[in-house]
Amino acid sequence: MRRVVLAGVGMTHFGKQPGRGVRDMSLEATDLALRSASMDSGDVDRVYFGNAIAGTVTQQVMIRGQVAFRGHPLGALPLFNVENACASGGSAFMLAIEAVASGAIDCALAVGAEQMNHADRSRAFNALRGSTDIDAIGEAEPGSMSANSILMDYYAEVARRYLDDYGAAPEDFARVAVKNRDHAALNPLAYLRTPQTVEEVLGGRMIVPPLTLAMCSPVTDGAAAIIVCSEERARKLGLPIVAVRACRNASGANGRPVFDAARGAFAAAGLGAADCDVIELHDAAAPAELLQYQEIGLCGEGRGFELLRSGATALGGAHPVNVSGGLLSRGHPLGATGCAQLHEIVTQLRGEAGARQVEGARIAMAVNGGGWLDGAYALAIVTILERLD
Amino acid sequence: MRRVVLAGVGMTHFGKQPGRGVRDMSLEATDLALRSASMDSGDVDRVYFGNAIAGTVTQQVMIRGQVAFRGHPLGALPLFNVENACASGGSAFMLAIEAVASGAIDCALAVGAEQMNHADRSRAFNALRGSTDIDAIGEAEPGSMSANSILMDYYAEVARRYLDDYGAAPEDFARVAVKNRDHAALNPLAYLRTPQTVEEVLGGRMIVPPLTLAMCSPVTDGAAAIIVCSEERARKLGLPIVAVRACRNASGANGRPVFDAARGAFAAAGLGAADCDVIELHDAAAPAELLQYQEIGLCGEGRGFELLRSGATALGGAHPVNVSGGLLSRGHPLGATGCAQLHEIVTQLRGEAGARQVEGARIAMAVNGGGWLDGAYALAIVTILERLD
Repeated sequence: MRRVVLAGVGMTHFGKQPGRGVRDMSLEATDLALRSASMDSGDVDRVYFGNAIAGTVTQQVMIRGQVAFRGHPLGALPLFNVENACASGGSAFMLAIEAVASGAIDCALAVGAEQMNHADRSRAFNALRGSTDIDAIGEAEPGSMSANSILMDYYAEVARRYLDDYGAAPEDFARVAVKNRDHAALNPLAYLRTPQTVEEVLGGRMIVPPLTLAMCSPVTDGAAAIIVCSEERARKLGLPIVAVRACRNASGANGRPVFDAARGAFAAAGLGAADCDVIELHDAAAPAELLQYQEIGLCGEGRGFELLRSGATALGGAHPVNVSGGLLSRGHPLGATGCAQLHEIVTQLRGEAGARQVEGARIAMAVNGGGWLDGAYALAIVTILERLD
Repeated sequence: MRRVVLAGVGMTHFGKQPGRGVRDMSLEATDLALRSASMDSGDVDRVYFGNAIAGTVTQQVMIRGQVAFRGHPLGALPLFNVENACASGGSAFMLAIEAVASGAIDCALAVGAEQMNHADRSRAFNALRGSTDIDAIGEAEPGSMSANSILMDYYAEVARRYLDDYGAAPEDFARVAVKNRDHAALNPLAYLRTPQTVEEVLGGRMIVPPLTLAMCSPVTDGAAAIIVCSEERARKLGLPIVAVRACRNASGANGRPVFDAARGAFAAAGLGAADCDVIELHDAAAPAELLQYQEIGLCGEGRGFELLRSGATALGGAHPVNVSGGLLSRGHPLGATGCAQLHEIVTQLRGEAGARQVEGARIAMAVNGGGWLDGAYALAIVTILERLD
């Protein structure tokens, strides 16, 4: 298997853009990624299109990627639509890099795109209800009737367990939100960019106890695109060599998909979390970031909130996490998130992150969780990248 | 890239099974495929799950495959949900064989499953409406209000053009239906198995002129599963060696995805349509089979109806087509069809097709079309297999 390089990345602004549509956002992100790779459409061999809920929100049930690229030169390429809930983007990326690594193709585009906001708000709600196991158990999970609280019912359970098991306080969740908002203030593509205090976060509207509004990722729209190619091609083009060290998909059936995927990826790369200069975690809610600190091995069990308090995971610390603002402040358009995380770590490893640049970053990781079954993500995709000379 | 073998195949009966569900059918097909491969769940490394419309019909919007395998040992494996409308099954298969060919994994399961029949018939209708380009053009295509006629509006256009351009008669479409029904009479897994005459087909209920009911594939439920592994593994297990010679995905943007995918696959295999002993085509409506004869190169342009009349594409002819009964008589559960086609040609190449066995079959092909954009399938997947010693 040959080395694969992330040749270019692009993404739209994330935010509430109800009239925009999957197609328009996908094309913008793709155009930016092609420019970032010094390529044009003719250089790409295949497209992997990640989306989670367009069938419900925009009513485009099938061939979403083909419709997004209809009339565009990339529409003439072989395309696979990939879905893995909030890990749809990471899944599309993983399939893209495997195809290039194998030599089956030389260059692929992975896109993640999601339109969540719609004049009919029940659409996103219905889609999120459909991320649970209705088919299997024959009825909907209990949950209050808003898109955000459906998703946050799960995270609230995680949060309460974290408080009970580890002696943390709700202030610790607030500190995650404050840190990531401080980061987002430096990221022009993020949705929520106004810094906030711990007190403000704790005093915000309660979504599902103990989670207040700022501890929950906002319902947003956006797209992100990644061009991957062989190292040979990237070197010919004179591109910065940001290479894949490992990428793993782990099922949640054993209850710990982030742990399993991270362990597998680090073993394949011969690295550990302490080697990572930049880390993007799946902070769909604030407690998830703290839990993932321990799941990737950045701290011992139950010590995540102390690690956060130490400042190690803030910009300027030893292992800055979610320098982009994370899902909490950049926003979380479900199928776009995995590619947006990769957008951030590639931008960092290329030294192009401007005011939020992690100086000298060489190794980075991203954790993209998806779905929810039996008390854990249905799956997680973990990617480790390295900047080579 | 190493050789990949279709180690085992399994499928449910196809038919109207409104209460069954994607999960139950997927597990049955998988269990049969594992037995056919002399394997158990522990031998499989990864799952590719093809489905088109469960988000609309069963309301399982995301992580459909994970829900289907929830609690099953295969649920603990990395899984990718793949969608490409009626080519979802073929697409899942293609990704599976590429991953094994590359050496990334040694054994994969590709499943195609679809529940179309539901007490609320508007669900399948809404899903099929969503296979068109609503997102792109902002409004639904015109079409009468039943699931079958929505799909058949497109095929009726194809049919009328075929009649106009080539001097064929509606009787020729009826002959396709009669041939494939005769085949299905020999296939215990097919839905419609009672032989019919040309007169009966022509006298049936008109769906969209000139297509009568028996010229349209029926709305059915079912699942099919394929286990693929390395040749080395298959030989160790003493399995019949049914190997992939080529598999291609072509976009419909150039208006001829079946032609493009077939040309690409035959070029890669160093073969042509005339070399194929068994052929499964995507006869979602009768005229599609006649058109595909010419698109794969089995006859010259406009000569398909003459080829059919010659008997060459019936069981006993030189190049029997849709010996399974095809989509017209086996049934067409959208996301399952691509894997069901592979089920048939593997069964034939293994010499296990019983009363419908094509004697001495060594080379076979399958054409799986998907979606509809701008007058053609949005894509086609073409697979060529060979039985080796």
